[in-house]
Amino acid sequence: MAGPDALQELGGLLARLPGIGERTAQRLAFHMLGQPPGYAAELGRVIAQLHARVQRCGRCGNFCEGPLCRICEDPRREAGVLCIVARVQDLMALERVGAFRGRYHVLHKLLAPLEGVGPMDLPLDALLQRIEPEGVRELIIATPLSVEGEATALYITEVVRSRGIAVSRIASGMPHGGELEYADPITLGRAFDGRRAL
Amino acid sequence: MAGPDALQELGGLLARLPGIGERTAQRLAFHMLGQPPGYAAELGRVIAQLHARVQRCGRCGNFCEGPLCRICEDPRREAGVLCIVARVQDLMALERVGAFRGRYHVLHKLLAPLEGVGPMDLPLDALLQRIEPEGVRELIIATPLSVEGEATALYITEVVRSRGIAVSRIASGMPHGGELEYADPITLGRAFDGRRAL
Repeated sequence: MAGPDALQELGGLLARLPGIGERTAQRLAFHMLGQPPGYAAELGRVIAQLHARVQRCGRCGNFCEGPLCRICEDPRREAGVLCIVARVQDLMALERVGAFRGRYHVLHKLLAPLEGVGPMDLPLDALLQRIEPEGVRELIIATPLSVEGEATALYITEVVRSRGIAVSRIASGMPHGGELEYADPITLGRAFDGRRAL
Repeated sequence: MAGPDALQELGGLLARLPGIGERTAQRLAFHMLGQPPGYAAELGRVIAQLHARVQRCGRCGNFCEGPLCRICEDPRREAGVLCIVARVQDLMALERVGAFRGRYHVLHKLLAPLEGVGPMDLPLDALLQRIEPEGVRELIIATPLSVEGEATALYITEVVRSRGIAVSRIASGMPHGGELEYADPITLGRAFDGRRAL
């Protein structure tokens, strides 16, 4: 493009974001330039400082800006129940639902042998070290219902077996409003196997 | 959301970009945090410096990082022919086509009385001041084929009338590959009126 280097650089960097192609990246770069300078100044500052400001909670792995996250610092959250999630985004989805009042443990990874992610890459030592001081008596494993998520859930179940902790797995079945006709066979099979007495 | 302030701020700022909703903004914020820190550091720096680096060419209004843009500085570009465009994006689209070898004049605005944009808001003094020193003998008006673009084209034609300059307007008609069946009536009417002898 015939434009100045700054616009070219910005377009190239924005095009590396997921779901943003070259044309969209260029449109966004021109849009930023067309806004009052304060917007780009603030956006640039927040992006540049992102990694310095956001850390992982020393207890559960959630993102935070201090040593502990807001959930771990909240005395109203139940200490004896931990919900294990793969990503902070999953934690936030559960918080939006508002059904869980315990604490979390964020893995940030799932077992994926083909990608070189083995058991040692999961923060399970940190999990085990929480059991006694926090009086953990129940684990709810909310990793995704994918191959990696299921393998990770099984592995964690093995690790905490013999510690007298109740372990459960979030339910798998038909989504709300789901039509049986269009469900994939695995989902429908799980919904059938997991039927509950009424 | 339960996340740290930095992610919330970033999500809020990104959601102000065109075509980016709140969920996409949050996804982008998490993506930036998940990348090596160098990416966000560079992206933030380039965005924050955007307005300081990018200026308008003192001659034609194109974006540039020095006093004159690359096109105005290029001695191979013909000085006697100016193409008038509304936006730098339009200039770049014409450059991609590569058919025009003259120079440009970027208006950055179109006549829009209802939005308070009148003739005095167009850089037409700057245009007139280019005529003699650059030996301008031809104007090609490539403002968009919208109401505002057409009104602006007509106004500029009036302004330069009596100066002995050839003025032309880019052609209006059916786009390449366009089906007559699906063309809007204005486009089809213009294509018909503008027919050329074969």
